Amino acid sequence: MSELLDPMFGSHEHTSDRAWVQAMLDTEAALARAHAEVGAIPAAHADAIAAVCDVSRFDLGSLGTGTAAAATPVVPLVDALRELAGDAAASVHVGATSQDIVDTATMLVAKRSREAILNDARSGSDACARLADAHRLTAMPGRTLLQRARPITFGLKAAQWMTALDEAIALLARWRPVVQLGGPVGTNTERTAAVAQLLGLDAPALPWHTNRVRIVELASALGALSGVAGKVAGDVILLAQNEVAEVRESARGRSSSMPDKGNPARSVAVVACARRTPALVATLLSCMDHEHERAAGAWQAEWETLRELLRLGGGAAGGVRAVVEGLDVDVQRMRDHAGEVTVDTDALIDAALAAHAGVEPK
Amino acid sequence: MSELLDPMFGSHEHTSDRAWVQAMLDTEAALARAHAEVGAIPAAHADAIAAVCDVSRFDLGSLGTGTAAAATPVVPLVDALRELAGDAAASVHVGATSQDIVDTATMLVAKRSREAILNDARSGSDACARLADAHRLTAMPGRTLLQRARPITFGLKAAQWMTALDEAIALLARWRPVVQLGGPVGTNTERTAAVAQLLGLDAPALPWHTNRVRIVELASALGALSGVAGKVAGDVILLAQNEVAEVRESARGRSSSMPDKGNPARSVAVVACARRTPALVATLLSCMDHEHERAAGAWQAEWETLRELLRLGGGAAGGVRAVVEGLDVDVQRMRDHAGEVTVDTDALIDAALAAHAGVEPK
Amino acid sequence: MSELLDPMFGSHEHTSDRAWVQAMLDTEAALARAHAEVGAIPAAHADAIAAVCDVSRFDLGSLGTGTAAAATPVVPLVDALRELAGDAAASVHVGATSQDIVDTATMLVAKRSREAILNDARSGSDACARLADAHRLTAMPGRTLLQRARPITFGLKAAQWMTALDEAIALLARWRPVVQLGGPVGTNTERTAAVAQLLGLDAPALPWHTNRVRIVELASALGALSGVAGKVAGDVILLAQNEVAEVRESARGRSSSMPDKGNPARSVAVVACARRTPALVATLLSCMDHEHERAAGAWQAEWETLRELLRLGGGAAGGVRAVVEGLDVDVQRMRDHAGEVTVDTDALIDAALAAHAGVEPK
Amino acid sequence: MSELLDPMFGSHEHTSDRAWVQAMLDTEAALARAHAEVGAIPAAHADAIAAVCDVSRFDLGSLGTGTAAAATPVVPLVDALRELAGDAAASVHVGATSQDIVDTATMLVAKRSREAILNDARSGSDACARLADAHRLTAMPGRTLLQRARPITFGLKAAQWMTALDEAIALLARWRPVVQLGGPVGTNTERTAAVAQLLGLDAPALPWHTNRVRIVELASALGALSGVAGKVAGDVILLAQNEVAEVRESARGRSSSMPDKGNPARSVAVVACARRTPALVATLLSCMDHEHERAAGAWQAEWETLRELLRLGGGAAGGVRAVVEGLDVDVQRMRDHAGEVTVDTDALIDAALAAHAGVEPK
Repeated sequence: MSELLDPMFGSHEHTSDRAWVQAMLDTEAALARAHAEVGAIPAAHADAIAAVCDVSRFDLGSLGTGTAAAATPVVPLVDALRELAGDAAASVHVGATSQDIVDTATMLVAKRSREAILNDARSGSDACARLADAHRLTAMPGRTLLQRARPITFGLKAAQWMTALDEAIALLARWRPVVQLGGPVGTNTERTAAVAQLLGLDAPALPWHTNRVRIVELASALGALSGVAGKVAGDVILLAQNEVAEVRESARGRSSSMPDKGNPARSVAVVACARRTPALVATLLSCMDHEHERAAGAWQAEWETLRELLRLGGGAAGGVRAVVEGLDVDVQRMRDHAGEVTVDTDALIDAALAAHAGVEPK
Repeated sequence: MSELLDPMFGSHEHTSDRAWVQAMLDTEAALARAHAEVGAIPAAHADAIAAVCDVSRFDLGSLGTGTAAAATPVVPLVDALRELAGDAAASVHVGATSQDIVDTATMLVAKRSREAILNDARSGSDACARLADAHRLTAMPGRTLLQRARPITFGLKAAQWMTALDEAIALLARWRPVVQLGGPVGTNTERTAAVAQLLGLDAPALPWHTNRVRIVELASALGALSGVAGKVAGDVILLAQNEVAEVRESARGRSSSMPDKGNPARSVAVVACARRTPALVATLLSCMDHEHERAAGAWQAEWETLRELLRLGGGAAGGVRAVVEGLDVDVQRMRDHAGEVTVDTDALIDAALAAHAGVEPK
Repeated sequence: MSELLDPMFGSHEHTSDRAWVQAMLDTEAALARAHAEVGAIPAAHADAIAAVCDVSRFDLGSLGTGTAAAATPVVPLVDALRELAGDAAASVHVGATSQDIVDTATMLVAKRSREAILNDARSGSDACARLADAHRLTAMPGRTLLQRARPITFGLKAAQWMTALDEAIALLARWRPVVQLGGPVGTNTERTAAVAQLLGLDAPALPWHTNRVRIVELASALGALSGVAGKVAGDVILLAQNEVAEVRESARGRSSSMPDKGNPARSVAVVACARRTPALVATLLSCMDHEHERAAGAWQAEWETLRELLRLGGGAAGGVRAVVEGLDVDVQRMRDHAGEVTVDTDALIDAALAAHAGVEPK
Repeated sequence: MSELLDPMFGSHEHTSDRAWVQAMLDTEAALARAHAEVGAIPAAHADAIAAVCDVSRFDLGSLGTGTAAAATPVVPLVDALRELAGDAAASVHVGATSQDIVDTATMLVAKRSREAILNDARSGSDACARLADAHRLTAMPGRTLLQRARPITFGLKAAQWMTALDEAIALLARWRPVVQLGGPVGTNTERTAAVAQLLGLDAPALPWHTNRVRIVELASALGALSGVAGKVAGDVILLAQNEVAEVRESARGRSSSMPDKGNPARSVAVVACARRTPALVATLLSCMDHEHERAAGAWQAEWETLRELLRLGGGAAGGVRAVVEGLDVDVQRMRDHAGEVTVDTDALIDAALAAHAGVEPK
């Protein structure tokens, strides 16, 4: 999280410490309620616990100190929650282990983040679709290995952007957030389905404390989406070069030293996001080797890495949406560069738009 | 490819230079046949081309020289193919671009590799299923952060391995290889469906020269599978420590200096594969920024990277299968360590086995 | 930055937004003073600028908004600084470009961070030296591929840790922070030496706007140090397994579910830091391709990545120091495991200690 | 290794299986000779061993089979060597462990590879120096964020390339290859200095079986050099765009579909090399956690990764040399784009050339 840079690289609304701690508290509250439903704890205790499961009641700084001592934020969080819960203290965190709380909270954070990310990505794709349809007859040079090749249309280029976005969106949309509940060694699963239902998550066949496939599936989808966003923004930067000047961002960025210069600032931010995500995916893949029933380091390395991926994935999606929605296209210049030829890309654009409509029907 | 190390890290049967060139030739042959079907080239030409599309007729060394000059193996390959094709020379590579041939060949290589990888991974998962069923009553210590926690059963541990393998298998199995055909700038798609059918690949809505989502989807699935294999092998190595000694590989590896020592050699090889895959996935994710209609470097960086991922993914899958199929389990020692308690994990194991049967019905 | 997790993964004292903005302000103040020295701006202006170059006068939130618009924090920072500077506004940021300020600030942040990191790493290495000397006669099993091999001494193992730390320390210590000053396209270098001297940095032959060797040299050294720390912590975790129990952390971490269990919490945190650094180094290496005279994305991707590396490198160094300084060694258990043999490792330990003393003389 | 692609991505002359096995045999021969020097084995045995330490006498295929079984190539290599050595069999591999042979061989391979890499990189830097000197007066537009900024000279741009290459060269040149000798657990070091001297390597204070700092130092230097090469090649590709056309490669690559098109093929190959190296560095950094006295997977993962880095680093260095040595510069077009201004970059170019001469005196 960076107050200074989050507006450029992606909001931390859903991935901040506060959001993550609230998600842990949501999990503790749901756990208590699920236990109360079967009489394992008094209903009044569940109510009392839920009433104090509000991040504004907790001091992040002192949670941080306790986190360092225990190598998990759940130890100090449960201590603080028990203190707040008063008589219900003994009903807090029953049967659960630290990882149940952190992993479930991570799923909640991911679910909430994904909704925002998909919304931006779909809007960006829709903006591409509009460009594809509007520029069916806008001939421009095709360029391969950064050399001019045969002519295409700008509509086809926009259709390519749209299709790539749609394919990455599909990977992210099909990912399923799943509750984690198993207790110290993964055998306490009685209330798994109930907690899942309360939190709007799926329930797994087994706890997944050391099975990280769903973590890397999410990470990879975010990496793919960021990568597509980076491709689109990179094309915009290249097309906005003064020597090409076929498009430009409508709201360009200022230079600190050259007042007359306009920079493709939003595209640059998207490229920066996209350049940072691949390595974070690799970190998560290299952290799949969780030892035995709970990992000694590999799990802990996931926490901030996945949150950063969600933040940057959101930055890439929001950024590419802004770039495409605010793109100024110089049709005449494209046509001049293409040599005033006619290129028929209608069938390709139609096919792509049909697939787009199928992906995301109105 | 390494004659010395491929038996340890994964066979290059489907990923060698020869396999890849053959797949390019298969693509050229299918392209010719597809053109002949609609009379775009003479049928006799398609036959003549197909007849010489055999890698044993080509000299890899001289193709290599030409590849360096053109930054693509297709330029020298098409030159050589035209020479072999005699009168049919003019019917070779009609309407296609280098990337059509390389990308389609890569899909063929991936398809063939995946079949072998999935076969090994499924056999490994089945072996886990057998262990899960056989060791329902084998209590052993659960271990978290590498400290003893509450007891579990070895059946549950094996069920966890199985479920993780199954989830990674599902990611890899759902990936779809798709033909690439578009010509210089992605507009020549008339014969796409025909070539796809001839090669047993799917046909895309648009050429995907600069849309690399399907590349990173495949790579990520291979990374996930390798990661799960590494987790299983890592557990075996830890359980095989002399101080633990709850399992051991039935065919252990020799030491060059200590004849009395037996090393968990297969597990070590799996871990080594798994440690190498995450970065290769990152390379492919960071290479999604293909410029305009064809990339100047990002595409070329994919070639060996993806082939290496397929090889190492295969090494991990074959290795984990061998480890689990050849695992010696010391039931008494597990029980001694657990303190002769009884642990009921039947319901969890049953649920996991049911899901396994659903994933891969016999 | 994470208030919740920084105490576990590394302090943000030197790498926070506030620290980074203050370093940018230090740079602007030095630039003004350097211009005043040669009469390029009035001395009173330099004083006025220096007087307001205090991060507490700036609102990070509004700087953030402006950063997103310009794709650089320097545009809004200079705007705000000019407003605060009153009559001296025209003397702010003279001849400089955004990247001059950000890169120089990054060097200041790195220099300040490195001092703390090296201090911790050297203390950790000294603690290893004490263990090496104290345990010359403490025989224990050598273990290779996690199988028992021939006996060693714990003194030798500690000497190995020490030597590896010393070698990584040497890589980090020899890195030189260098001022950046060149203006829009790298030609305004008149005051480079003066600004360098004012800030305690080296002066380069040329501006290095698109030459990122020094960035990746620093990153690589941090990666190496983290990697060594992770190796030491990993050994501690393995030696602390209940079945081995040859060492344990004196201040172990609590479990949220098993009050009787003590976790190697500090070692786990070090391993987590070490698992996160390699990919961040890769990000910086993959961002060396700065286009022309200033990059469109590759540079911007460095900012948070390098700060995170400094934070995690600090977490790893501080953590490994705490682990080694607080290590409980069970000498009798080591000897029992080794079979009461005598192993002479004195010469090796002496050689290593001599090299250690040479590396860091008292 | 790829017969098809090595000419494009880098020669395997020094990194092939054969080269690596020969280096292992060189190590075994030196070990025998060092033992014979002190009478530990008969001199005739050392001669007999040395006589058969020739890779052409060994079958890589059968070594490969044995490698997979033992998870080390040294077990089958020593078996085969003993068979060839006849009466001297008992004097083969005395006191050594597998890792001694592999690590020392890796140092030999790295040393031989580095010489070729540095030679190419220095020639490339010299070519940049010539361009810097020749184009002091060639004004051209400076470009930042891919937008035109103030004018520079092409001489200054070439000087920037040169300086970056020189700094990366310095990192690689200062790396020291060091012999590995310690036996099963790192305590057999009596002949270390002798073997080091025979092989032209340095001798370490301690064996470094699990201290991988020198591996990642080498890897990082190769990553830095590749990164600089990629920056230079990337600039060439951008300057060679038809719309810019200020430079072009003198020997451009053919297209398979457009005979009239010339591609910047060498630059593309360099970029492809540079895109592949960062992740390989990350793999090596993430593999520093070698357990205890010898790793179970982390070490084995290094073998091919480091060889690939050496190959790609060589490809990048050789490629950038070819690009710069063969660069056609369109001086008039640069001046036209700059607007016929005069830019004085003499002092900067002089300073850079002086530093270059210091780095690499004639």
